[in-house]
Amino acid sequence: MVGGGQLARMTCPAAIALGVGFRILAGSAADSAAQVWARIQVGDYRSPDDLKAFAAECDVLTFDHEHVPGEHLLALEQTGIQVRPGPAALRFTQDKLAMRERLTSLGIACPRYAPVRDVSDVTEFTGGKWPVVLKAISGGYDGKGVWVCRSAAEAAEVFGHGLALLAEEYVGFQRELAVLAARSPHRQGAVYPVVQTVQADGICREVIAPAPGLAPGRAARAQALALRIAAELDVTGLLAVELFETADGLLVNELAMRPHNCGHWTIDGARTSQFEQHLRAVLDLPLGSPAPSAPVTVMANVLGGDGGDVYDRYIHVMAADPAVKIHMYGKEPRPGRKIGHVTVTGEDVDQLRDRARRAASYLRWGTEEGP
Amino acid sequence: MVGGGQLARMTCPAAIALGVGFRILAGSAADSAAQVWARIQVGDYRSPDDLKAFAAECDVLTFDHEHVPGEHLLALEQTGIQVRPGPAALRFTQDKLAMRERLTSLGIACPRYAPVRDVSDVTEFTGGKWPVVLKAISGGYDGKGVWVCRSAAEAAEVFGHGLALLAEEYVGFQRELAVLAARSPHRQGAVYPVVQTVQADGICREVIAPAPGLAPGRAARAQALALRIAAELDVTGLLAVELFETADGLLVNELAMRPHNCGHWTIDGARTSQFEQHLRAVLDLPLGSPAPSAPVTVMANVLGGDGGDVYDRYIHVMAADPAVKIHMYGKEPRPGRKIGHVTVTGEDVDQLRDRARRAASYLRWGTEEGP
Repeated sequence: MVGGGQLARMTCPAAIALGVGFRILAGSAADSAAQVWARIQVGDYRSPDDLKAFAAECDVLTFDHEHVPGEHLLALEQTGIQVRPGPAALRFTQDKLAMRERLTSLGIACPRYAPVRDVSDVTEFTGGKWPVVLKAISGGYDGKGVWVCRSAAEAAEVFGHGLALLAEEYVGFQRELAVLAARSPHRQGAVYPVVQTVQADGICREVIAPAPGLAPGRAARAQALALRIAAELDVTGLLAVELFETADGLLVNELAMRPHNCGHWTIDGARTSQFEQHLRAVLDLPLGSPAPSAPVTVMANVLGGDGGDVYDRYIHVMAADPAVKIHMYGKEPRPGRKIGHVTVTGEDVDQLRDRARRAASYLRWGTEEGP
Repeated sequence: MVGGGQLARMTCPAAIALGVGFRILAGSAADSAAQVWARIQVGDYRSPDDLKAFAAECDVLTFDHEHVPGEHLLALEQTGIQVRPGPAALRFTQDKLAMRERLTSLGIACPRYAPVRDVSDVTEFTGGKWPVVLKAISGGYDGKGVWVCRSAAEAAEVFGHGLALLAEEYVGFQRELAVLAARSPHRQGAVYPVVQTVQADGICREVIAPAPGLAPGRAARAQALALRIAAELDVTGLLAVELFETADGLLVNELAMRPHNCGHWTIDGARTSQFEQHLRAVLDLPLGSPAPSAPVTVMANVLGGDGGDVYDRYIHVMAADPAVKIHMYGKEPRPGRKIGHVTVTGEDVDQLRDRARRAASYLRWGTEEGP
């Protein structure tokens, strides 16, 4: 796995259980996964030489992020290395314009979009109807590279970053959903229940599995959509499809081809965690059951807060709720940074959300109610 | 954790999630846990210097086996190191005669026993009623150090090993049960549901959680017994109590103070795995919920079989049963050696036992029905 962040870290338990020879190319020995895993190589994912040296020790190469340049992956593939997902699929996570064009050509509903070169392109795109969303065509993640602009002046500011941009209509969605599918080189597919994601400031804060009150037909269509995209884009491994639910139906917001925050709940709430599923898929093993193991699972991210020691806070959180599952990533708790998550399973959505929020808040702020 | 076997290996995922600075003293870099974990020190658990150097990097010392000499642990404690469980408690897992005497003094029912120095002691103990069980007072595990003798001649053979021995009555039990409790230095206790264990040739083959058809009163008494023993013996960490169920009630067979084979089911079948629970207990954190997460969980050990590659067998096992959880230990598959386990969760005990057996058999022999 190229990348030593929390996604690689959380893949380690799956690799332990399956007993597969999992290796990680980490940017530094202090990376989240490098702190815990024996088989680490420190190197730069942007360096063809580092990638080649790492790949020489592996049967299959996969990723905990989408930032490895496609040309390096093509070069590795040409030397016979199995790259999963392959560069042709990964391109649609690296180039949002290519993604929009491809999905549109497949007849899949997306927000209205257009590439924009300057403010006048944006103004023309909006037709005077603000706000509008500007997105960096490549390189964004976790709300970075996405701007909601309420005026031409705000759009002009974004152009100041010097990035290639895409304009998208601002969708007045009812809520955000996500579907996580897996696909193997043998073309087996498996799909998890549709979840609701709750974002704030572009960062996922909460995931509810399954999405409460989602019409069964719509849920089934969302699952079929994810499997179809995975097949059409020839994805191997996981595909996360982030969706807007609107009065008129579902629109695809983003794609990712790796374990994803919308699937962290599966560690404690599904028969097969997304991390095990990703390993099975990229190793071309039969996929695991995506069935939930509890009626409802709620995950809440733990963000960096006031700089207090989160481990000191374990005593309260664990005593207050002995069934809450804590997952920390070994990251410095910079304010607003994802440093862990908590999961609770049960039956009552509201109670579970309350429990997850209290635990996440306490780990962040030292109080269950936030600052 | 002193010891780098599969118990240490399976503690790694819990350490990853809690983000605690888990370190392992392994006998070799090829040990089960050393294959996967970053923070390994290679050393000899029988060497005071190796133990001291390892403990210098730790706040709390715990164990994946009970073979560290008590005098070394006492010496470490005297230098201010937290040893959990402490040597005074561990003694009762290292000296079976001391364990029997202590439990008897507490009024806890055990098989009738006596230390024996020679065959005439054994003959006197049996009063002519064979078979009798001889046990090495220290050093045994997994059926090693336990002999069922059907005659004085067989007993004489056992004395040939030159070990200090204990004679115990041969108990005609109905079945074997086990209870796993945890206790923290703050004296919090938590206890898992009573399980049934199925042994063959002294090796655990199957664990059913909870024990099917166990009378609620007897289950409650078994749980209370485990908590009482943990308290009386001042255990910190896990305590596994292996029991014989007889027509007259429960007899204590063995004790262990570490994660135990009878608790592997908790990884997939309980809110808190025994490995997380052990870490919480020895770190003096509030204990996790021991509640099961499914009505029934069945675990079957995978033993080394015909030398075929178990990983080649994943394709069949995973395709045949996408919900079976596989846990391999990275061990050479020597015939009869525990090299992994599988777990299934659900409702119907017979179906689950069948599924677990088929998966374990296939991983061992390449056929679902055994050789």
